Formats: sequence, structure tokens, C-alpha cells
Amino acid sequence: MSEQRAGMSRRRAITLAGVGVAGVAGVAAGTTALVRGADHASAGEVVAGSVPFHGEHQAGITTPAQDRLHFVAFDVITKDRAKLVAMLQEWTAAAARMTAGKDAGLIGAVDGVPEAPPDDTGEALGLPPSQLTLTVGFGPTLFRDAQGKDRFGIADKRPAALADLPHFAGDALRPEISGGDICVQACANDPQVAVHAIRNLARIGMGVVSVRWSQLGFGRTSSTSRDQATPRNLFGFKDGTANLKAEDAGLLREQLWAQPGDGADWMTGGSYLVSRKIRMLIETWDRSPLAEQEMIVGRTKGSGAPLGRKAEFDEPDFAARADDGQPVIAETAHVRLAHPSMNNGAHLLRRGYNFVDGSDGLGRLDAGLFFIAYQRDPRKQFVPIQTRLARNDAMNEYLRHVSSAIFACPPGVRDAADWWGRTLFS
Amino acid sequence: MSEQRAGMSRRRAITLAGVGVAGVAGVAAGTTALVRGADHASAGEVVAGSVPFHGEHQAGITTPAQDRLHFVAFDVITKDRAKLVAMLQEWTAAAARMTAGKDAGLIGAVDGVPEAPPDDTGEALGLPPSQLTLTVGFGPTLFRDAQGKDRFGIADKRPAALADLPHFAGDALRPEISGGDICVQACANDPQVAVHAIRNLARIGMGVVSVRWSQLGFGRTSSTSRDQATPRNLFGFKDGTANLKAEDAGLLREQLWAQPGDGADWMTGGSYLVSRKIRMLIETWDRSPLAEQEMIVGRTKGSGAPLGRKAEFDEPDFAARADDGQPVIAETAHVRLAHPSMNNGAHLLRRGYNFVDGSDGLGRLDAGLFFIAYQRDPRKQFVPIQTRLARNDAMNEYLRHVSSAIFACPPGVRDAADWWGRTLFS
Repeated sequence: MSEQRAGMSRRRAITLAGVGVAGVAGVAAGTTALVRGADHASAGEVVAGSVPFHGEHQAGITTPAQDRLHFVAFDVITKDRAKLVAMLQEWTAAAARMTAGKDAGLIGAVDGVPEAPPDDTGEALGLPPSQLTLTVGFGPTLFRDAQGKDRFGIADKRPAALADLPHFAGDALRPEISGGDICVQACANDPQVAVHAIRNLARIGMGVVSVRWSQLGFGRTSSTSRDQATPRNLFGFKDGTANLKAEDAGLLREQLWAQPGDGADWMTGGSYLVSRKIRMLIETWDRSPLAEQEMIVGRTKGSGAPLGRKAEFDEPDFAARADDGQPVIAETAHVRLAHPSMNNGAHLLRRGYNFVDGSDGLGRLDAGLFFIAYQRDPRKQFVPIQTRLARNDAMNEYLRHVSSAIFACPPGVRDAADWWGRTLFS
Repeated sequence: MSEQRAGMSRRRAITLAGVGVAGVAGVAAGTTALVRGADHASAGEVVAGSVPFHGEHQAGITTPAQDRLHFVAFDVITKDRAKLVAMLQEWTAAAARMTAGKDAGLIGAVDGVPEAPPDDTGEALGLPPSQLTLTVGFGPTLFRDAQGKDRFGIADKRPAALADLPHFAGDALRPEISGGDICVQACANDPQVAVHAIRNLARIGMGVVSVRWSQLGFGRTSSTSRDQATPRNLFGFKDGTANLKAEDAGLLREQLWAQPGDGADWMTGGSYLVSRKIRMLIETWDRSPLAEQEMIVGRTKGSGAPLGRKAEFDEPDFAARADDGQPVIAETAHVRLAHPSMNNGAHLLRRGYNFVDGSDGLGRLDAGLFFIAYQRDPRKQFVPIQTRLARNDAMNEYLRHVSSAIFACPPGVRDAADWWGRTLFS
């Protein structure tokens, strides 16, 4: 911890009882200064509008996709394993509080330390939990540095599935917004709540981690539950119709969650996250005729039905041919190339968001899709699918992949004594 | 118009009956391809969840501040006044439709022109109006270019109140994200709806305007109606407590709307917009003790009450002194320096939004306030207030002004035959 943080140790000593974080809610009841809406909940209690933090799997994966995203990748700047572990424990306590609609910790000038900064930045005071979820992941560089050195004594725990992604045809990656040692995905139905959470984790991590890159997203581009309507991406098409969904128990076991025997026991119940920031050349797209757009996607723009079928959830008929003998769904159509039946049955649980990052200085909006996909093993899922898409997808003319990252997201935090990364660091 | 747009003339001829845009809704009823949620409304009819587009003043000023923003500044790239006017008329028709929850125009392959691009980009299909407002403004550079040349025969109509802003102490403006010939402020309660609107105006304006810069915002930082609770900015403080509000009829006349005799008749009923992108050094702020933060702002963080008072809306007592003889509200406190009583009674109607534009490459979030203020005359309102703040505000240590712009927002569009800029160009 930095010197600055050392000054907070008295209060930290109260909130963090050794390794465990039990009693946080109890202590919080002692402060009356500045509290978020739902401060009276105790650990484990479900607050209205909140998503339970504890469980077998991390929340924010099969949780019905919220509408807003703040995603951050951190570099770890300490060499001290104990500091890293202590921060992960503090993060876990803060995450449990914030996802329940509370502040990040004790707040304001409490217990006689008026000169210390507040324990919460305050901009979410009074806001409800807004279905906030916080999902953590560990990148390949956390295990070994660029010189191959074991950074924190965990190199031999790096899962084979956490392999660096290969270069894909057409990749135009910017290293400064790619990769990262640790990621946190904050999803909520209020962007202020998602931003508040990431900001407070960054603040707690001062001296231990540094923000490498971060991304805001609006408008989910996938459904992760059959209760949700399929949203539209910035090409104007429904996106994620064939996504893995929370109700597909068998497929989730087979395609989403790391299983015993997969090769890294600490990841059992976890999942691998691939993120790709995909700039869409929307001005060019907007000049394409509707028929061409639909041919590229392989679906109709209005209903989302596969070409030649009637309704969104009808199965695409890849064998169908038009009167002229041409396939109804083109060989280069996105829906064909990405479909599980064309990829050895490989599915992804996609959880992407639209983004607009202002403009690009060339008179165009800097907009697109921040793609996020969860899976059991990227070597068998994202990598072969993206290899195929990168080579043949007719959509590539309108896309630029500018950022890429992969993270191993551990299993869920079981209870108030558990913490993010325990299975990796214990 | 560009060549590409020439191919759309047949459909345009139907939707745009000469200068007027009457009959748009009637024609729209003829298409069944792709329509937004509320396609059945006719012109002037109020759709649930929509803000009326026509009126004495433009919507989006005293309209209760929506929660999301997409603001864009365009450069005009044509020299042809007729093309500029035609685009403003098309924009007006599209804005009337989109604010009513409809698509930007006819959509899809209608009336036998299947090779033409769709008339709407589609990503807002099925979404409700979401209180979308679109507010247009004209910048100083639209009247004369940098060489002083009259660009569109309107140089003599430039209002004296549309003066270039002076340099303020501490300004660190980036020219590429400052200024602009025309601005459009899109506010909505769904960012997808705001982004969709700006994108479709940019698409309609192809060959006439080019995006100079654009900014997304989330989380309004002001209330513009007494029915709204005061929100918090990224310093964690309530912002906009003393804002001009829709209910203050007398003050609005005196402080917000341009009046007959103000010197530019075409602006009567309009208002002047100043935008400032203000980066907040939130990591530094987060390390400041609560007491220091409150001294800088002049209000308590929790309730928003002025220091020494009890409730948010209590009037600040600038004369009060503590036992040690020091002012309860510091001489350099933000609330003191910005208060109307310290600025010859000058008020602003603020309508700013929080922003997070990822990170800055130095381990910090690129975050802050996109400040927007409307007023009757910036020379008597924003300029003197900001001059005082720039010199003395204790908050400056945590702020960087990186973008600045000023626009004259004309009066409202009266009816379906009226259009954005008519009073300026007719």
C-alpha cells in the first residue's frame, strides 16, 4: 500500500478482520454520515434491485445482461504478493457492499480521522443498486512478465486455456488499450453506478494497481436470458439471437464453466473472458443498400429472421438455395460463419455493448461494439470462430478490431470469508 | 448534396414537399418495412414518453434534464447556401420524427429503390421516444470564416452576444474538440436513442457537414425543474442546486431567453449555449480529506446544504464567520464565487453531464463534467462568472478545461412548415 493508504490503516483494521471481511455490514451501521440507499442490508441479504454477490459462479456472466458497462483493465504495479492479496481482499469487501447498493466502505470523517479522505467518492449516494455486478478476471501477464519471470509465485497455475490470442487476419490492435493483468467488468442499469464502482476499486487499489485502459458501453448487444428481447447493435441489426443463455443448463456446463479436470483446478466454476473492441465504420455501412446489409449479416434487419425464414428464432437453413442456384444465406454471411453448426458446436456467451467514443478527427463517429464473450476454453471456442470470421466474413469491410484481451475469471465468491482470487493465491 | 444522396431524390421528393415538410407522417403510413415503436402518431400529436418538438422555444433547454447526452459539433463543408438550407430542412423533418419515437424518415427498400441505403440506420427500432430532445445551435464560425469572409450571406446577422469567449486563466483548450459551425444537443433517457438521432443527422448531412467533435454524457449534473432531485457530479457533490429552473418564469425571461430588442431579432425566443469539457482530476480529489472537499465546494457532501446551514435549498450565508473569525464559507469556495449574488444577479441554466472517456494512459480515468449552460447573454452571464472562477476558485486545482464552444440556439420550430434556422436564413 502507498504511504497515503497507510494513513487509513485504523479504519481498515476495523473493516477488514484479518483475511476475512466478516462484520463489514455491522461496522457500517456505526456511521451515519454519508450512506447509499440500501445501507441497512447485512451480508448475504438480498436488496431490492440488487444481484446476489456470493455464489458458485461470479455474477455478471449469466446474469441477465444489464444495459450499461464500465470495463477496466489494470496493470499490477507492486511486486509484493501480500499487497496484491490484501488489495483483492479489500476489493472483495467493497464489491460485496457496492453490489448491494451500499458505499465502497465506511465513509466520511468517522472514528476520529477527519484528515483522511472519504472511504467512498460519493457520486452514487442515494442511487439504488441498479443490478450492479462486478466480475473479476486475471490476465496472462499476471502469471509471468514479458521476460518470462514468475511475478507472484503463481506461474505454474496459469491455465493452458489462458493462452495468448493469436494474430487474426485484419487485426489492427493498439497495445495500450489491449491486455492487462486484472480486469473488472462492471455492469449496471445506471452508468453512474457502474462508473462509481470501478472508480472506487481503482481508488482502493492505489499503489497496487494502475488503470491500463477502460471502456464505457451502453446498450447491451446480447441477451443472456430467454426473458430478454434481443437488442440491436450499431449496424441496426438484432445481435445475439443464438447466444448461450442462462436457461441452457446443459450447454452452460459444456460450453461456459470450467470443469474439474480441465487442467486448472482453481478455475473450476470459472470462465474465460475474451474482449475485443471492434470499431464499426458506420458511415460506410449507412451508405450500403439494405439488401446488401442483410446479405452480409444473413438476417433480415426488421425481424431478425434468418434469410429465407420467417421469425427471429427460426433456425437458419444454410442449405437453402434461391431460384438462381445461389445460397439464400451467403457463404460469407456472418450468421453462417459464426454459427455453432459451422464451428464444431462451439458456442459463446456474448455480453457485448455498443460504444461511442466521440469522433475520430476525420469527420466520423468513433463507434462500434465492445465485444465480450465468456467460454470454457477459448482455444476451442473464440479462437476457431474468430479465425474463420477474420478470413471470410463479408462484414470485415466495415470492422476494425482495435483492442483485444483475455482473462481467466475465477469461480464465485462463496461467502463473506471468501475473496477474489483465493483459489489462485491460496 | 453528395452524389450518393442524389440517388435518394425520388423518396426525398415525397417526404419533403418543397420547403415545408407537411405530410411526412401521412407518407410514412405507407411503409410497413421497419418502423420505430410509435409510428402511428401524426405531426403535432404527443406520443407517450415523448417531448413535443414544436413550440415557442426549442425543447431540450427547460425540458426536465434527461439522464443521457450525445452532443455533436459539425463543420459545414459546403459553400452552397441552398444545400445548407435544404439540409436544415431535412434535419428538422427527421428531428420531428425521431423525437416522436419514429425513424429518421422512410426506411427500407420502399417505392422501388432497393439499391438505395435505408433511410434510417435501425439501431433504435422498437425503442420508445425516451424523452428525446434535439436542440440546434449556430456557432460564430458559421457567420464568418477565419479570414473574416461572409460564408453564407448571414454575417450581418451575427448577434453581438455570440462573441468568441475570452481566454480564461488556466484554460488548456484543445482546438480540435472546441468550436464548430453547428451543434446539436441530443438528450434522452436511453443513450441508444440519443446516439441514433445524432448519427442519423450526420448521415442526412453527408456532403454538407462533417462531424468536428462529439461527446457522450451520462448522469445529468443539474436539475432544470423543481420536480427533479439534485444529482451528483463526479466529485460526489450535489450539483446545480441553485440552477435556473423551468418554473422560474420571470427569471427565465430575464436570464434565459433572448428578448426583442436584444440586438438580433432572429434570436428572439432563443438562447445562447456555452459548452466546456472539464476534465476532473478525480484520483487527486479522492485523496483529499472530506473537510477539504467541503471547504472547496462550500457545501456539505452528504446533504448538499451550504456550510453552516442545514438543508440543501437553504440560502448560503456568505457573511457568517466561525469562532476563529474565518468565513464559514471560504472566500475561494465554489458556491460563493458562482452565486448570483456575487455576480450582479447573473444566473445560468446549466444542463451538464458526467463523462468518462476511458483512461488517459497515465493510470487515471479520463473523466469529468461536460458543462452546458444556456443564457440570454454570455457577455453578462457565463463570461464574468467564469472569469471570477478561473481566477479564484479553490476547485481549479482539480480541474482542466479542455474544450470550449459557444452557439446561438434559435427559437423553437413553430409547426410542420417551420424549420431549424428559418429565422436566420429567411
